[in-house]
Amino acid sequence: MEQELPSKLLHTAVDELSRLPGIGRKTALRLALHLMKQPADDVERFSRAFTAMRNEIKRCRECGVLSDADRCSICANPRRNRAVVCVVESIREVLSIENTQQFNGLYHVLGGIISPMDGVSPNDLLIDALIERVSRGEITEVILALSTTMEGETTCYYLYKKLSPYPLLITTIARGVGFGDELEYTDELTLGRSIKNRQPLVMNG
Amino acid sequence: MEQELPSKLLHTAVDELSRLPGIGRKTALRLALHLMKQPADDVERFSRAFTAMRNEIKRCRECGVLSDADRCSICANPRRNRAVVCVVESIREVLSIENTQQFNGLYHVLGGIISPMDGVSPNDLLIDALIERVSRGEITEVILALSTTMEGETTCYYLYKKLSPYPLLITTIARGVGFGDELEYTDELTLGRSIKNRQPLVMNG
Repeated sequence: MEQELPSKLLHTAVDELSRLPGIGRKTALRLALHLMKQPADDVERFSRAFTAMRNEIKRCRECGVLSDADRCSICANPRRNRAVVCVVESIREVLSIENTQQFNGLYHVLGGIISPMDGVSPNDLLIDALIERVSRGEITEVILALSTTMEGETTCYYLYKKLSPYPLLITTIARGVGFGDELEYTDELTLGRSIKNRQPLVMNG
Repeated sequence: MEQELPSKLLHTAVDELSRLPGIGRKTALRLALHLMKQPADDVERFSRAFTAMRNEIKRCRECGVLSDADRCSICANPRRNRAVVCVVESIREVLSIENTQQFNGLYHVLGGIISPMDGVSPNDLLIDALIERVSRGEITEVILALSTTMEGETTCYYLYKKLSPYPLLITTIARGVGFGDELEYTDELTLGRSIKNRQPLVMNG
């Protein structure tokens, strides 16, 4: 498919689309031809959305999440519990946790995870900002909601050491067997932890 | 996932991406966050590619293919055989056939296929333009390279009737068992035609 298209304009559009993660040249061509068939106004609006997002979006100065204003809609919401802060890697985890509707506190987005292999050190993340937030004394609990990868565990440990001088509860999200998972196919580490951290059974009704 | 994102700008970008065929909201979010991480200039160039394509691209006035100039690079190429014209549905088939490097003639892009179900009638396609090209008398062969669907066969038949008054050879691409296909799994119609249209065996060497 790395051939000369009969139109340079089409070629450029296909190039740009195929630079997106997970989009190959065949898909890029299909998407470009789809855009060609749309009304010019729609394509204009399509294009404008990305430059507007890239140039105008900010980070919330409290929690670091992508936001249109200096303070995001979560931090600005008076009904959220300001004493509990959930630390996550990126906005994606914020969205996932918001989707569960099980959390009413605030967030702190690190903007990544400590990974010496990828050259990400603690200084590249919003860790100082987290400590600064905690030092103001309003926060009583910090929930560490990071991945259970090597990098996630390293970051957890680093944050734990940084946070432990402060008078607050440091928690981490529960690890265990997921709903719908079969015990037979659950890995040893997860199953082991889920037995160690077993909980009293409460039946409703 | 149809939730409120903390940024309207991000929300709009995700909306626009998820309107593309085959892109769901999760993928759209992943792509939008990827764009957020790119340099502003790259995002500018990304956006500009689509408006430029949509607003500036033309159709070749001879063959109807998408082109930057009034005449496409294939029609303008003096080394192409102007006596043979391959009729296809869209630019996609032009690209596929060009990829084979087995065809040195010109193309004629219909811009679709006759499909009463989808409300596409012969008048919606560049059929008159094809007849006009043929009537100039330069063309000695028209190859019909359309899909073997019901709509493709209907369009073939319609074109055959329109073209038959002219002194030219009307051909269609060979149907048969594809390279790498197993006979056992080939459908009856294809296998039947491939036996009926069998060809003398020529071995090299």
